[in-house]
Amino acid sequence: MRRSHLALLSASLAWLAVTATAYAQTAATYDDLAKSEAAANAENGKRVAPVKSIGNPSDEVSPEMQAMIGAPYPPHFNADPKTPAEWKELIERRAKLAIAGIPAMKEKLGVKVEETKIAGVHCFVVTPNKMPPDNRRRLLVHVHGGGYVFGPGEAALGEAIMMAGFGGFKVISVDYRMPPDFPYPAAMDDAMAVWKELVKTNDHRRMAIFGTSTGGAMTLAMVLRAKTEKLPRPAAIAPGTPWADIDKIGDSYAGNEWLDNVLVTWDGWLGRAAKLYANGTSLKDPQISPIYGDFKGFPPTILTTGTRDLFLSNTVRTHRKLRRAGVIADLNVYEGQSHAQYQFNIAAPETREAFTDIARFFDRYLEE
Amino acid sequence: MRRSHLALLSASLAWLAVTATAYAQTAATYDDLAKSEAAANAENGKRVAPVKSIGNPSDEVSPEMQAMIGAPYPPHFNADPKTPAEWKELIERRAKLAIAGIPAMKEKLGVKVEETKIAGVHCFVVTPNKMPPDNRRRLLVHVHGGGYVFGPGEAALGEAIMMAGFGGFKVISVDYRMPPDFPYPAAMDDAMAVWKELVKTNDHRRMAIFGTSTGGAMTLAMVLRAKTEKLPRPAAIAPGTPWADIDKIGDSYAGNEWLDNVLVTWDGWLGRAAKLYANGTSLKDPQISPIYGDFKGFPPTILTTGTRDLFLSNTVRTHRKLRRAGVIADLNVYEGQSHAQYQFNIAAPETREAFTDIARFFDRYLEE
Repeated sequence: MRRSHLALLSASLAWLAVTATAYAQTAATYDDLAKSEAAANAENGKRVAPVKSIGNPSDEVSPEMQAMIGAPYPPHFNADPKTPAEWKELIERRAKLAIAGIPAMKEKLGVKVEETKIAGVHCFVVTPNKMPPDNRRRLLVHVHGGGYVFGPGEAALGEAIMMAGFGGFKVISVDYRMPPDFPYPAAMDDAMAVWKELVKTNDHRRMAIFGTSTGGAMTLAMVLRAKTEKLPRPAAIAPGTPWADIDKIGDSYAGNEWLDNVLVTWDGWLGRAAKLYANGTSLKDPQISPIYGDFKGFPPTILTTGTRDLFLSNTVRTHRKLRRAGVIADLNVYEGQSHAQYQFNIAAPETREAFTDIARFFDRYLEE
Repeated sequence: MRRSHLALLSASLAWLAVTATAYAQTAATYDDLAKSEAAANAENGKRVAPVKSIGNPSDEVSPEMQAMIGAPYPPHFNADPKTPAEWKELIERRAKLAIAGIPAMKEKLGVKVEETKIAGVHCFVVTPNKMPPDNRRRLLVHVHGGGYVFGPGEAALGEAIMMAGFGGFKVISVDYRMPPDFPYPAAMDDAMAVWKELVKTNDHRRMAIFGTSTGGAMTLAMVLRAKTEKLPRPAAIAPGTPWADIDKIGDSYAGNEWLDNVLVTWDGWLGRAAKLYANGTSLKDPQISPIYGDFKGFPPTILTTGTRDLFLSNTVRTHRKLRRAGVIADLNVYEGQSHAQYQFNIAAPETREAFTDIARFFDRYLEE
C-alpha cells in the first residue's frame, strides 16, 4: 500500500468519523458504487464491502428493542486493562451499574433471590413467586455471561431472574470464579462441582442448563465434560448466542464487526478477555471453544441470536454441528438484534418472547 | 455534504476498487479505527460500519461451498434493462446457462423429467428413479426462484431435481408466467390453478409446497391464498430464504449488502424486477410481500438461509412471525452462505445437507 493512498484514506476515514451522517450510498452515485464494488470483488476468496450507514430495523421491532439496537457502542468496548488491578477496576465499575438494576427486576418479575453455597461454590437460588405445578420438581442451572470476566456476584443475575420470572422455573445461578485471579479451568470447575452436587439430589431428567454468551459456551462445555466424566446430563439446554469459538473464527466476527453495538469487535476487550481466561490453554481446546467438541449424545438444545450479533456464526455453527450429530436443535434469530440484546430490557416484548420460547422448549423436554 | 469531501471520498473509493486488497483494518491502526468508529456511532439510531475486507469462512465449510462463497459478483447484478426486449435478452441469456447444466444433474441425481400441462399451465413432473415406499403417495409442488423474471422452462428445474433426487419425492414444478409479458398476478394465478387441480386427485395431507427466494415468497403467498379461497392447505412447506418483503425493508438488506455475492444489493436488477412484477400493486400487499399476511393456521414450515444472505432478515422475520402465530417453524442458517447458495452445486455437502433436512421435515409432517 502506497503512503499517499494511506494518507488519503486515513484523512477520509477521519472525516467520516467526524461527520457521522449517511454518506456511504450518497458519496458517489449508486452506479459508481456498484462499479467500484464489482471491481473490488473481482478476486476470488475475498469479499469487500464499502462504508455503510444503516438505520434501525422496521417498526415490527418494538420501540424498546429499537432503542437498544440504535444505541451507541458501550464505552468499554475497546478497554485494554494492562494489569489485574485495571481489570478489577473495570469489572467492578460495570458490576455496580448492573447490580443497581437488580432489585427493580426482582420486584417486577416476582422472584425471590437467596444466597447459598453448593459444593463450596457461591450460588444464588432464584425462585419465582408463582410456579406452574409442572415445574415444581424441575430445576434449572444458570451459568452467566460476561466474557469470563464480567458479572461477579449479583451483577449477572438478570438472566436467571428473567428465566425464573418469565418461565416460572426455580433457577440455581452459579457465581463461578473468574480472571484475573482465576483463569481457566476455575469457572468450569465451579460450574461442574455445582452440577455434580445437584444431580445427587435432583433427577437430571427434570434439569436443564442455560446461559448466554460465555454462559452459552460454558453450557456446551459442561455437557461435553459431563460426557467425559460420565455424569448425568441435563434433559435440555439453552445456550444463548454461545461463545462457541473463543477465537476470532466464524463469518460474523467479520461480517457483523462494527455493526453489533454490544460486543462491537473481537479485537477490543473481548479478545483480551479470551486470552486472559485461556491463560495459555489452546483456543481450540473444546473446553475453551466447545465448537471443537463432539456433540453426539447432546440433549435437545435451543439457541438464540440476532441478525447483527457478532456471535451469529458462533450460534449457527453450533446449531448445524448439533444437527449433524443428530441432536434436536432449535434456532431463533431475532431481527436487528446485536449480541444478547434479547435479555437486556425486561420491558421489551422480544425479551419476554425469547424467554417464553426457551421456557416452552424446556417444558417439552423436561420430565415433570 | 461539502463538495471537497465528496471528491476526496470518491477518489478514495475509486482507488480502493482498483487495488482490491485488504485495506480496511490496515488503513489506520486498529485503535484509530476503533476511535473513528466510536465517534461515527455516537448518534442514536444509526449504525456506521467501515470498509471491510472479509475472507472466506473456516475449513468446516466445504471446498465446494468455499468456492461459491468466494466467487466474484455475478455479471448481471446491476443489470438495468430498459425495455421488455432488453429484459427478454437478459432472461434468455441466463436461462441458456442454467439449462446447459440440467442433463448432467438429472443423470447424477437419478431423476426423470416429463413435461405436462395442469389446468392449462406448463409444468414439469420430476420423478426419482428410486422412491422410498413411504413417499409413493406423497407429492411436492415446486415454485421456482429467480426474482419473478428468471428461470423460464427448464432453467429453474435444478431445485426440483435436487428435491426429487436427494429427498426421493415426486415433484411437480410449475413453469408459471412471468414479466415482462405477465406481471402480477399471473405467476400466482398459475401456481394456484395447478394447486387447485392437484388437490382434486391428491390428498393435501400428503402434499407440500416448496421453493427458494421468489419461490419461497410464492410458497407463503400460496398458503395465504389457499386460506382466503378456502382451499385445502399443504401438510408442510419449505420456503427457502423467501423474498417475504419484496421491498428493501429488513435489516440484512443493509447489513449484508455487498457481502452477499449472489444478489449483492436490492438496488440492482432485483429491485427493478420487484417493480416490474408488482406493476403498480402495493409492495405491502401480502400477495406481493407475504410477510404482511396473517400466518395463523399455516402448516409446519422449514426455512433455510445463510449468514451473508441478503434475505437473512426476510427469512428470520418470516420465522418469528410464524412462531408468533403458533406455527411449527424450523430455521436453518448456514455459515458463510450468500443467498440460496445451498442449492447451486450438487457436489457441495451442504447442498445434500439442506435438501436432506427439508426431506426429513416433510417426512415428519406428511402422511404416508
